[in-house]
Amino acid sequence: MTYFLNIDKIKFEGSLSTNPYAFKFYNPEEKIGDKTMEEILRYGVSYWHTFTMNGSDPFGGGNMIRSWDKFSGMDLAKARVDASFEFYDKIDVPFFCFHDIDIAPEGSSLRESNQNLDTIVSMIKDYMKDSKAKLLWNTANNFTHPRFVHGAATSSSADVFAYSAAKVKKGLEIGKELGAENYVFWGGREGYETLLNTNMKLELDNLARFYNMAIDYAKEIGFDAQFLIEPKPKEPSTHQYDYDVATAHAFLQSYGLVDHFKFNIEANHATLAGHTFEHELHYARINNMLGSVDANQGDPLIGWDTDEFPTDLWSTTLAMYEILENGGLGRGGLNFDAKVRRGSFEPEDLFHAHIAGMDAFAVGLRVAQNLIDDKVLESIVENRYQTYTEGIGLAIVEGKTDFRKLEEYAYGLSDIKQTSGRLEQIKATINQYLLKAFAN
Amino acid sequence: MTYFLNIDKIKFEGSLSTNPYAFKFYNPEEKIGDKTMEEILRYGVSYWHTFTMNGSDPFGGGNMIRSWDKFSGMDLAKARVDASFEFYDKIDVPFFCFHDIDIAPEGSSLRESNQNLDTIVSMIKDYMKDSKAKLLWNTANNFTHPRFVHGAATSSSADVFAYSAAKVKKGLEIGKELGAENYVFWGGREGYETLLNTNMKLELDNLARFYNMAIDYAKEIGFDAQFLIEPKPKEPSTHQYDYDVATAHAFLQSYGLVDHFKFNIEANHATLAGHTFEHELHYARINNMLGSVDANQGDPLIGWDTDEFPTDLWSTTLAMYEILENGGLGRGGLNFDAKVRRGSFEPEDLFHAHIAGMDAFAVGLRVAQNLIDDKVLESIVENRYQTYTEGIGLAIVEGKTDFRKLEEYAYGLSDIKQTSGRLEQIKATINQYLLKAFAN
Amino acid sequence: MTYFLNIDKIKFEGSLSTNPYAFKFYNPEEKIGDKTMEEILRYGVSYWHTFTMNGSDPFGGGNMIRSWDKFSGMDLAKARVDASFEFYDKIDVPFFCFHDIDIAPEGSSLRESNQNLDTIVSMIKDYMKDSKAKLLWNTANNFTHPRFVHGAATSSSADVFAYSAAKVKKGLEIGKELGAENYVFWGGREGYETLLNTNMKLELDNLARFYNMAIDYAKEIGFDAQFLIEPKPKEPSTHQYDYDVATAHAFLQSYGLVDHFKFNIEANHATLAGHTFEHELHYARINNMLGSVDANQGDPLIGWDTDEFPTDLWSTTLAMYEILENGGLGRGGLNFDAKVRRGSFEPEDLFHAHIAGMDAFAVGLRVAQNLIDDKVLESIVENRYQTYTEGIGLAIVEGKTDFRKLEEYAYGLSDIKQTSGRLEQIKATINQYLLKAFAN
Amino acid sequence: MTYFLNIDKIKFEGSLSTNPYAFKFYNPEEKIGDKTMEEILRYGVSYWHTFTMNGSDPFGGGNMIRSWDKFSGMDLAKARVDASFEFYDKIDVPFFCFHDIDIAPEGSSLRESNQNLDTIVSMIKDYMKDSKAKLLWNTANNFTHPRFVHGAATSSSADVFAYSAAKVKKGLEIGKELGAENYVFWGGREGYETLLNTNMKLELDNLARFYNMAIDYAKEIGFDAQFLIEPKPKEPSTHQYDYDVATAHAFLQSYGLVDHFKFNIEANHATLAGHTFEHELHYARINNMLGSVDANQGDPLIGWDTDEFPTDLWSTTLAMYEILENGGLGRGGLNFDAKVRRGSFEPEDLFHAHIAGMDAFAVGLRVAQNLIDDKVLESIVENRYQTYTEGIGLAIVEGKTDFRKLEEYAYGLSDIKQTSGRLEQIKATINQYLLKAFAN
Repeated sequence: MTYFLNIDKIKFEGSLSTNPYAFKFYNPEEKIGDKTMEEILRYGVSYWHTFTMNGSDPFGGGNMIRSWDKFSGMDLAKARVDASFEFYDKIDVPFFCFHDIDIAPEGSSLRESNQNLDTIVSMIKDYMKDSKAKLLWNTANNFTHPRFVHGAATSSSADVFAYSAAKVKKGLEIGKELGAENYVFWGGREGYETLLNTNMKLELDNLARFYNMAIDYAKEIGFDAQFLIEPKPKEPSTHQYDYDVATAHAFLQSYGLVDHFKFNIEANHATLAGHTFEHELHYARINNMLGSVDANQGDPLIGWDTDEFPTDLWSTTLAMYEILENGGLGRGGLNFDAKVRRGSFEPEDLFHAHIAGMDAFAVGLRVAQNLIDDKVLESIVENRYQTYTEGIGLAIVEGKTDFRKLEEYAYGLSDIKQTSGRLEQIKATINQYLLKAFAN
Repeated sequence: MTYFLNIDKIKFEGSLSTNPYAFKFYNPEEKIGDKTMEEILRYGVSYWHTFTMNGSDPFGGGNMIRSWDKFSGMDLAKARVDASFEFYDKIDVPFFCFHDIDIAPEGSSLRESNQNLDTIVSMIKDYMKDSKAKLLWNTANNFTHPRFVHGAATSSSADVFAYSAAKVKKGLEIGKELGAENYVFWGGREGYETLLNTNMKLELDNLARFYNMAIDYAKEIGFDAQFLIEPKPKEPSTHQYDYDVATAHAFLQSYGLVDHFKFNIEANHATLAGHTFEHELHYARINNMLGSVDANQGDPLIGWDTDEFPTDLWSTTLAMYEILENGGLGRGGLNFDAKVRRGSFEPEDLFHAHIAGMDAFAVGLRVAQNLIDDKVLESIVENRYQTYTEGIGLAIVEGKTDFRKLEEYAYGLSDIKQTSGRLEQIKATINQYLLKAFAN
Repeated sequence: MTYFLNIDKIKFEGSLSTNPYAFKFYNPEEKIGDKTMEEILRYGVSYWHTFTMNGSDPFGGGNMIRSWDKFSGMDLAKARVDASFEFYDKIDVPFFCFHDIDIAPEGSSLRESNQNLDTIVSMIKDYMKDSKAKLLWNTANNFTHPRFVHGAATSSSADVFAYSAAKVKKGLEIGKELGAENYVFWGGREGYETLLNTNMKLELDNLARFYNMAIDYAKEIGFDAQFLIEPKPKEPSTHQYDYDVATAHAFLQSYGLVDHFKFNIEANHATLAGHTFEHELHYARINNMLGSVDANQGDPLIGWDTDEFPTDLWSTTLAMYEILENGGLGRGGLNFDAKVRRGSFEPEDLFHAHIAGMDAFAVGLRVAQNLIDDKVLESIVENRYQTYTEGIGLAIVEGKTDFRKLEEYAYGLSDIKQTSGRLEQIKATINQYLLKAFAN
Repeated sequence: MTYFLNIDKIKFEGSLSTNPYAFKFYNPEEKIGDKTMEEILRYGVSYWHTFTMNGSDPFGGGNMIRSWDKFSGMDLAKARVDASFEFYDKIDVPFFCFHDIDIAPEGSSLRESNQNLDTIVSMIKDYMKDSKAKLLWNTANNFTHPRFVHGAATSSSADVFAYSAAKVKKGLEIGKELGAENYVFWGGREGYETLLNTNMKLELDNLARFYNMAIDYAKEIGFDAQFLIEPKPKEPSTHQYDYDVATAHAFLQSYGLVDHFKFNIEANHATLAGHTFEHELHYARINNMLGSVDANQGDPLIGWDTDEFPTDLWSTTLAMYEILENGGLGRGGLNFDAKVRRGSFEPEDLFHAHIAGMDAFAVGLRVAQNLIDDKVLESIVENRYQTYTEGIGLAIVEGKTDFRKLEEYAYGLSDIKQTSGRLEQIKATINQYLLKAFAN
């Protein structure tokens, strides 16, 4: 194995050391409740952002400095696999994720593309024998190639639908081969640019048909991964069909697919949709559909998907609170769907950025667990809704009343006592928990 | 009857006249297809914006000049009824809409409030005998009073739930009494300020319970109006539960309520949720849930609900296109949930503003009908999805294929022919239709 | 003195106590560098949000529970003064701020309004003899009354201009009488609703004339307070003339007024204008125009001015960094232009909210001072721009080169070495400083 | 000359013809006032969007079908020149615009890049002898190459500053050689990603130094083009220094550069900065700094620069109103800084899109001229500010009053008469002018 990345293995250091390549808060073996940090957080590396992204943006060309760029074609693909496992090992993550074209170049035909995939998948499988790293999920990139200009499963062209199906079929086979925990469907260009030329009903019907075929094929080959839908409101399409969790939930219910999917929730997609990250997690959780997480963050003043590494401790705390309340992520994990900034173009930045993100969620985890242990929010909520545990409130909850009885009751009310929501005090309390979490 | 509004009845004038109080494009009797403009557009006046709003905003007090402001209490309420029917008559609209507290002041008790309502409802009923104007919909204002600080049906207080139920019960009775075509549920404060103190699951469960009781009671009293949910993403709550049509659709499906409701879609609420007005109409339409419309517009550079009178002809055209494709609005209508700007504080402005809006939708109606008559968009869509009418595309649509067959087919594809979406040409075409619509 | 607020004086507690009414991080006497926290932070209470605001919003009436609401007219005004000094004392702030109409009701004439002001100003002056609290700044509310519907100094009516001048004249006299450190000009409705009816050039010329008269009059009466402009991009006007610091800077330069003003920068106004809080502080600082701060925060997902109490520790850290780099705020201070949420309607919430904000900026102060002491950001910046301290870079900075010489130099360049901006590592470092700031 | 684009020359057709490649509203020779449409509108084609853009976006590769793509290197550059003049001729535009790297590929050294430019510039110059098309402006692309990762004139590296200077020096020489009417400075990456590692003061000082050197060099070589700054708030940088017109105006004033520049205002940049297009035009106009226009439009629901072809007739009308009030654009023009959508990938779409845009501004021009001829807005404004033409208002405007006199006057005011701003009526009137503009 060639060594590409000249950083030693990252170690947790119990104090604030001067070693810039050390975790300050993440300690894989530290117990939080009855599990370790590693078991709860289930960190994953995104192959695309870390090994294939080159720093280009709509106004600039690739500028990332990577040792593997001296290779091309399948040699490049192989060098990236080498580098990726070196990285997983050094940064000590238990999972990775990829799209098909991240790991192997498209060939001049579908058959050649699939052969390329077979070669690389076999190489990855070999590496996995000696590595801790497992496949959190894989997916098909059905949006980059020009053929997907009008979508994939929702394309206006039946040929594109067929081609997309073939790619997902291959993706399911790869997932099975590598023992993937989940399989992700991110909409890519499943959406529309303008309603003026769009048959939205047909496109949505086709999307449901596509999902049904995927379910059937996974069953046929015995691939039991959790299927995940990843909502996003816009970009690249002007309007994406899986706008947010609720919209995708409506779709799944409309087409009788709700039992076959959970959600892969991305922080930056949540904020682009006008929601907090924790809102999307919460909505999914109370519907038993929280599957996995794309851990990143956006810039609230920027209107596109910036996919920044997560460092907002308030946000990681509230996210981990939802995840702990969910009983963890099950087969899901925290995949860093995050890219180093274009200005952070050196290989070292890949380490700094992952450390920043892993530390940030480790902080969030510990603070959230402390909040839960002390029943901070739980007590607030219990007190606040106490009227629903007795009398008229209990009758409401138990379905033992109606508008006539409620009116009669309301006529008898003199003054309704309200209680403050205490938002400012609650926020101050969370700040206190944050600042004391590592104070010892 | 006292006359409050010194503007003569609005008349359609076939040419651009110098009369500022005349319709330029709206002609109630003009045939569009086999109906008249009046029958299709079914315009309604919002009681709150037109007769009770005083121009205040978070930074300024009431500044509207209204002749009825010399009255107070029930006298004020009665004077407003007088003025309202004078206005409906002069501006020649067939419908009006109100919240309970718009028409009658809250008393010192629920019982007194209901008595006030009875008095005014009776007065309105009398007026309706001699007026063209009918009640498009009514609703309960369950958000202004301090008791609703934490919501109504989703309040943390069971007493507030009961009080809200009593108000909606009364609203259903009023709707029946006045022959309302629809009954509207706008979320008001049904949402949350922060997840930190919120039991969202309980609140949503309670909302569903509330809706079920409303359905039962309407059935019990024989009130057969269409129930409508009006989505809004935020304001006054930080997060409103009925964020957009899709979110409310998910909720209705989750709770088995989907057959009991259609949607009342507001343009400004759509844009605040990140959607175009026509997107929300389209989504509702293809789910057979387009019920009625709150016709207004927002300022895309402003982040709150500005409720402006609609004057964007592009938007009214696309909206009317959806409405015509829906076969009209059925029992719904176009309610001007719009307020004159604070700077437009004179009574005359109420006329100018309604004329502006009625003319704008009349233009949209004629342009949309011309587009439909000429099959402009229909042809584009038909051509674009033609591949789904034969061969592999037909097999997909008919459910006669699977991933294996599609892969096989994809292996055989050499090059996939794509066609341009032609967005720029389509937009130019619509502009041409707009500019020629009244060119004669 | 009647006691209105049943909370004991707030005390700093060195540890996380169970007393909910105690500072956890703010210690007025704690030394940060060579000053105390109190001397640096110079906290101020906003009279309007704390003593006159009633919780109303565009969809709801007043719901705040305040003991002084049993009074009305001048009695109410006096009771509020009593309560305000009780509050300053209990919460232990050194400053307060007000608009004219916050402290005294408008009378039926300008003369009566001014008499009301005289009465209350005299009462405040008496209180100030025995209180630590001083007047950070006062201002004139020239936006709430209907006469200001089209602006004040930029009104389309010369009478309104005159009336506004009279109010500011009185404001300057009050400021002098109470020894105000600053006098604030917030634009209120100085802006436009639509360009279609607006003479922007005349309005801006008039605004400059107004400022010149204010400068002259302050000089005439010997009032030497710092004049401050507070930018805001929109709300209540669709477009406010003082959009952001740079826009107001352009205005001041255009009209030769730049030496007479500094800026009062509000966090929530910054974000509404598309900037970070620290950006606005930084821009003002490097132009020697950072005067004072309205300390609050907005909700990045909400498009209006929410004026929340500041609790975002990342933001308070970066803000305090700018303020320390500025050598402090001079005669300015940190005024909590922040209101308790409508759901936090109890008097206790006023304490919780101020504590939350005071603690949050105290944390920011300590973290920022630690960053400065350790030259964390200073070193990064020095290294990054090192090429401008020698050779061609020095020639550029010293103005000793030109395009011909630079081209010649560029022809000789082989490869330009770039260095990573290291954003992720820097963010992680700041998180580490935050988490260790109170860890002992 | 090889023919690349198989569309016949576009002709104006006086009626709505079935020819999809014909202007419907733009007639170059039609007189509007005392000039022709062509003379007023001065349309320009953007070389980058039309001849080098390939349809790629952050989620997709190039998909545009262009006949010249069979070439590469300098052959490709030459083929594009051929095609460009064919296009200018067929679409009948009088101007074009380019960045240096649009027309010629960068070589392996600055010297080779300049030689490539010389070759192509010479070819363009030859073409210009026989073509109507002139160079509206050129500019240097100092943002795409990795060397500009941290900016150009505001780079943290002095070498990059020098390299940027060399490129602009060459740009000025090319502008002179080709007789450019203007030279544009768009900030590219002149801005910052984060303040945490940025010396904003040094960067802005350097930017001013750079501009001064450019002014000196243009003077030295006798290049008398108008210098233009093009503001943009964000993208690619998180914060661009030339945020909007006012911000750039502040900068130019701070550094004594205000007489050397006018503004090139882009519609989509305006809306990204929170302003309407007409606001930016108006601000520049009343400061005598309206130089030229990048004619496009954004999607108000999308947070990035979509650079759509302009089709919003309301916006083109208000823009043309400002331009006519400015007495035209002088040496500037309307450059279509607009790209066909990724879904509009066929060569025909280049024609459809330009026709859509040229027609849209032609409509705007005619409507605006009609509004001016009928003094529609002028009368409204005159009436509205009438109080400043006599009495106290005149004294204010003439500087003959002060706060004492104004207070005295205000004491004497009984009631201040306000007049409605009539926004809704004004909007309706503009809609009427729009719909009748081509009604004959």
